[in-house]
Amino acid sequence: MPGNSYGEQFRVSTFGESHGRAIGCIIDGCPPKLPIDLAAIQTELNRRRPGSSPHVTQRREPDSVEILSGVFEGQTTGTPIAMVIFNQDAKSKDYDNLRDTFRPGHADFTYQQKYGIRDYRGGGRASARETAARVAAGAVARALLQQQAGVCVRACLVQMDDITIPFKEWQEVNQNAFFAADSTYETQLSERITELRRAGDSCGAVVQAVASGVPAGLGEPVFDRLDADIAKAMMSINAVKGVEIGAGFAAAAMRGSAHNDAMEGDQFLSNHAGGVLGGISSGQDIIVRLAIKPTSSIRQPQATRNTAGDATTVSTTGRHDPCVGIRAVPIAEAMLCLTLADHLLRQRAQCGSPV
Amino acid sequence: MPGNSYGEQFRVSTFGESHGRAIGCIIDGCPPKLPIDLAAIQTELNRRRPGSSPHVTQRREPDSVEILSGVFEGQTTGTPIAMVIFNQDAKSKDYDNLRDTFRPGHADFTYQQKYGIRDYRGGGRASARETAARVAAGAVARALLQQQAGVCVRACLVQMDDITIPFKEWQEVNQNAFFAADSTYETQLSERITELRRAGDSCGAVVQAVASGVPAGLGEPVFDRLDADIAKAMMSINAVKGVEIGAGFAAAAMRGSAHNDAMEGDQFLSNHAGGVLGGISSGQDIIVRLAIKPTSSIRQPQATRNTAGDATTVSTTGRHDPCVGIRAVPIAEAMLCLTLADHLLRQRAQCGSPV
Amino acid sequence: MPGNSYGEQFRVSTFGESHGRAIGCIIDGCPPKLPIDLAAIQTELNRRRPGSSPHVTQRREPDSVEILSGVFEGQTTGTPIAMVIFNQDAKSKDYDNLRDTFRPGHADFTYQQKYGIRDYRGGGRASARETAARVAAGAVARALLQQQAGVCVRACLVQMDDITIPFKEWQEVNQNAFFAADSTYETQLSERITELRRAGDSCGAVVQAVASGVPAGLGEPVFDRLDADIAKAMMSINAVKGVEIGAGFAAAAMRGSAHNDAMEGDQFLSNHAGGVLGGISSGQDIIVRLAIKPTSSIRQPQATRNTAGDATTVSTTGRHDPCVGIRAVPIAEAMLCLTLADHLLRQRAQCGSPV
Amino acid sequence: MPGNSYGEQFRVSTFGESHGRAIGCIIDGCPPKLPIDLAAIQTELNRRRPGSSPHVTQRREPDSVEILSGVFEGQTTGTPIAMVIFNQDAKSKDYDNLRDTFRPGHADFTYQQKYGIRDYRGGGRASARETAARVAAGAVARALLQQQAGVCVRACLVQMDDITIPFKEWQEVNQNAFFAADSTYETQLSERITELRRAGDSCGAVVQAVASGVPAGLGEPVFDRLDADIAKAMMSINAVKGVEIGAGFAAAAMRGSAHNDAMEGDQFLSNHAGGVLGGISSGQDIIVRLAIKPTSSIRQPQATRNTAGDATTVSTTGRHDPCVGIRAVPIAEAMLCLTLADHLLRQRAQCGSPV
Repeated sequence: MPGNSYGEQFRVSTFGESHGRAIGCIIDGCPPKLPIDLAAIQTELNRRRPGSSPHVTQRREPDSVEILSGVFEGQTTGTPIAMVIFNQDAKSKDYDNLRDTFRPGHADFTYQQKYGIRDYRGGGRASARETAARVAAGAVARALLQQQAGVCVRACLVQMDDITIPFKEWQEVNQNAFFAADSTYETQLSERITELRRAGDSCGAVVQAVASGVPAGLGEPVFDRLDADIAKAMMSINAVKGVEIGAGFAAAAMRGSAHNDAMEGDQFLSNHAGGVLGGISSGQDIIVRLAIKPTSSIRQPQATRNTAGDATTVSTTGRHDPCVGIRAVPIAEAMLCLTLADHLLRQRAQCGSPV
Repeated sequence: MPGNSYGEQFRVSTFGESHGRAIGCIIDGCPPKLPIDLAAIQTELNRRRPGSSPHVTQRREPDSVEILSGVFEGQTTGTPIAMVIFNQDAKSKDYDNLRDTFRPGHADFTYQQKYGIRDYRGGGRASARETAARVAAGAVARALLQQQAGVCVRACLVQMDDITIPFKEWQEVNQNAFFAADSTYETQLSERITELRRAGDSCGAVVQAVASGVPAGLGEPVFDRLDADIAKAMMSINAVKGVEIGAGFAAAAMRGSAHNDAMEGDQFLSNHAGGVLGGISSGQDIIVRLAIKPTSSIRQPQATRNTAGDATTVSTTGRHDPCVGIRAVPIAEAMLCLTLADHLLRQRAQCGSPV
Repeated sequence: MPGNSYGEQFRVSTFGESHGRAIGCIIDGCPPKLPIDLAAIQTELNRRRPGSSPHVTQRREPDSVEILSGVFEGQTTGTPIAMVIFNQDAKSKDYDNLRDTFRPGHADFTYQQKYGIRDYRGGGRASARETAARVAAGAVARALLQQQAGVCVRACLVQMDDITIPFKEWQEVNQNAFFAADSTYETQLSERITELRRAGDSCGAVVQAVASGVPAGLGEPVFDRLDADIAKAMMSINAVKGVEIGAGFAAAAMRGSAHNDAMEGDQFLSNHAGGVLGGISSGQDIIVRLAIKPTSSIRQPQATRNTAGDATTVSTTGRHDPCVGIRAVPIAEAMLCLTLADHLLRQRAQCGSPV
Repeated sequence: MPGNSYGEQFRVSTFGESHGRAIGCIIDGCPPKLPIDLAAIQTELNRRRPGSSPHVTQRREPDSVEILSGVFEGQTTGTPIAMVIFNQDAKSKDYDNLRDTFRPGHADFTYQQKYGIRDYRGGGRASARETAARVAAGAVARALLQQQAGVCVRACLVQMDDITIPFKEWQEVNQNAFFAADSTYETQLSERITELRRAGDSCGAVVQAVASGVPAGLGEPVFDRLDADIAKAMMSINAVKGVEIGAGFAAAAMRGSAHNDAMEGDQFLSNHAGGVLGGISSGQDIIVRLAIKPTSSIRQPQATRNTAGDATTVSTTGRHDPCVGIRAVPIAEAMLCLTLADHLLRQRAQCGSPV
């Protein structure tokens, strides 16, 4: 099976290159009669969109999504939902000098090794632009989860560079340009971005995503565990280098007596497990964190080689985010929605409705 | 697609419960004419086997693997390779008291919620015993990787409880009961286990796995990235709560100028990426770390509920590892072998031989 | 994805060679809490079993099936159901002379071309013996269909050689050694088999399978149509060369005015469609016919070549059915059960219960 | 897995409704560096196009295909190839009267039963219009087969109504409006269509497709046999009710001594098997025939029911082919190309290059 599809029952296949004609996706397996609000999909896309704040890349794409099929008179019909976003602000000439040069930290080298050919313009298929299609698909998954299972998926930035942002309130997240759950951090974060931009450098980040209201019973033994699929979903986002569930890496230094989540009646007394036991949802909040590496495109000159194998240096002057981790917030939500929607339908298939 | 299979081209499906008749697997898609050494498979199983050291569970299972099909006159034929391990030391009576009780940290509650029925004996399908089948399959994948691509996969324990174990040499790993890459740590680790056993408690661990000699070009855009599939593979191991590739979570606090791996000729000057760029192998070592939570089964009494919803306490007195992270070492190797073998064949399908 | 699995949600993977240690299967995705009657599975196997009548191969295999996992206290648990049948009457020496010779009509040549190696004993993986595993899996699918959807699947022999057998009653089918729906044909069919055996020759057959009580709505646009999956299922049975649904090939010479099934209230007035419209079940009987070629193994000498490319002749003296089409009856039922069970669960996943 | 994708390694996913915004597909897994000629794809589409001859539906669609991704500077890049055809001559008002009426022989009733909602305009997703996307994808598969394996795939009409058309020469096929391999039949076929159109009736057909130059070794045991996948591919085409390989249904009345294809050196002396033995290609021509039912849309009034369950009659006055079997010729070629391309890549994955 080729690698551009995700999900077994709620299945999304994406296509498109950064500077090609369009990007988009097909969702196959979406339940019928689900009301679809194009404006809600567009809203999600706008959150991810480049150029939406001074802190992200200045490429100006309206990212207007069009539905080509699968929706009739405002409802899904059960047939494939195709969505397309035409590329409009692709300045391919910016990339002509990269035809033969491998940018450090980018997929230029590995795509060339794999395929022997690559669309070098703007990173081609490896561009973060591809994630717009995921966000569109995620919006449909979110509608399914909300309407048919009462699930709520949210995410926020919890670390940028060495600044950790304690959680205050979910409603803060959409009130600042950083998806921080405490807007009072906005100034500090802004200053750091400005500093990095000035230095021609970039920084990493940590994003936390939480799903509430997930019914117990989602996830499959033994390979397609819910947490295993979430780990894959998150690690498949550009620049992600680590994923943890619940206590995560901290669990390695905990004792069983402290880590185990005791129960009292129907309630768990803690949530170190992050809502997943034995790969199956417990009904508690699903909690996942992902580490995003610093943006690979930096203005500072870096040593590299060209396709001929000769040494050269590269300095990336395009329109890039100093911290791709910021825009990873809506993308992480989308991937969590897609994973949960898929497991919701898989659970229906084998065991009937989980609710 | 149900959840007990892994891999697209080199595909393993496992079956079996801890206290059922047998556990085992089918490998489908293995290339033909691969010499198979049953003794080598058994050696891998022995490394994972319970009762193999005083530091792991005392269940005494010979774990003798039998090949039922797919191998003829010492070579694979290209047809499914079925392997079976009959359970021999299953003391199910030890578990009778758990018929109606949900042990904290275990999958008892979630399996019951998912299926409305569960084989409670020894954790049933959720038992770590299931991983023996993965290790057997991993041994075949390792043979493929070694013989057809020159890939070498190894792992070691890098942290247990709060003891971090610096890497010294690979050859140390099989010379101590902890798979530590520095045998001088053996006494300290032994003492910690003894202390935990005495206290009726358990601890977590971190394992690092490394694949060397991986050809550049393995991995698929955009969902089935090599690192995404590795993350899934590792997170699908019992008790794993976090996975990171290369610099991992530390990348979040790094600058692009420090994190990017510059190139000089054919060489990368560093390996913060952990051998994967844009989801595709770069030819550098693949480096992955996984965090394992403390063993859920502890002797200390814990508050929980029974299937009727009444409050009760549980104290697990069976034969359990105070640190399941130790035995996770050969399992992590197996999962990395399975993932790489699968992507090796996928690469052949689309692009021809990667070597 | 390798080729030894069938089904997306109710998924069976088979393994085993004719003269290897064992054959068997794993069913993954079976709903939990389904009562499983081992005797009922064995009964299905006995119907297919060689040596069960004088008209089929004389290999004496008890075909005793053992369940290794996934069933607990008489019910499915939702985890993989592994079943195994150990080979007992494998007389491999009978086949030593075939090590280097390609039997006409057999898969000897093509397996050698595909894999460069083959287990030549008794046809190895290509032997009809493999279908025993399908029949065991089909028995579980049948239990699911009966208990959760009221579906009834039956088949009968409708043609053998040039003898056509008109349908009389379903209850006749198990009252004669030919699965004929009219037992009065038994003598004629017996005589033909005896004649063929004497002549060292073999003949073909046509089998018809019918599923009643199938809920409307099963099947997927546009590739995984119910009839497309049935066609694949049937064509995957050894020796099948043709499949037709409803009016089948006769439809080619019909007019629309005659072929279209008009409706009167909730009733269709005819069933030329064979219970499938646009790839989706209509609630009418699913009707499928399959053409089985004459048994390839015949005593008459045939011209062929050996692995070295030299001309030779082969005369197959082993224990073979003069008409494999007879035993195809329970196998066709099994494949139809597997296909319907799979689509029942797929329908649940996307649209909820079809009933 | 939802049902709108086909193929495991060369995977096509289609979308779109007859009267929606567009139809199209994504091909995932296509090898890189394959030269793609948009004109060649358009030529295939033109062969299938409605309105291309007086004998097929008079809907006027230019069927202009656009490539949105995956092709760069005239070559495939290995990333998903998305193709889209915008609908231009959709006269949805023609169908307003069908909102509540189930046309006999159509999927109206079954889609309603399955999904509880349907895009009734022009048959929605169940329209033969969907096959344009398959033809576009098939053209890419054909390019792969031609350039990398020397395979040639052709098809022709061998029966229409009760007129059988003996094979004369492949080059005749594109010289008449019926894809007949003997153009002298054109007048007779034309007259029959005219007669049917006048009578408000329709007729069925048989198409034969042949693949030459297929390397030995393609196909998988035991479920994903090459002939099983071909059967599925053909049966997934609208209106197909039967599929046969090689001797097909005639094999049922043959003796083994007549049916077996003897060998002489590297040559088979006959091809009753249709190029497939044990599910694996033998190197001989792959020969498949498909039976197509008469067009369901006829002008003659037919008894049916509406969504409320009331009796009514329907007479279809839209622009329809009296024989959809004619246009099935390029579609059958496309499906055969897709199946062979998929198995070519699957063979590479497991066994290396088959050539």
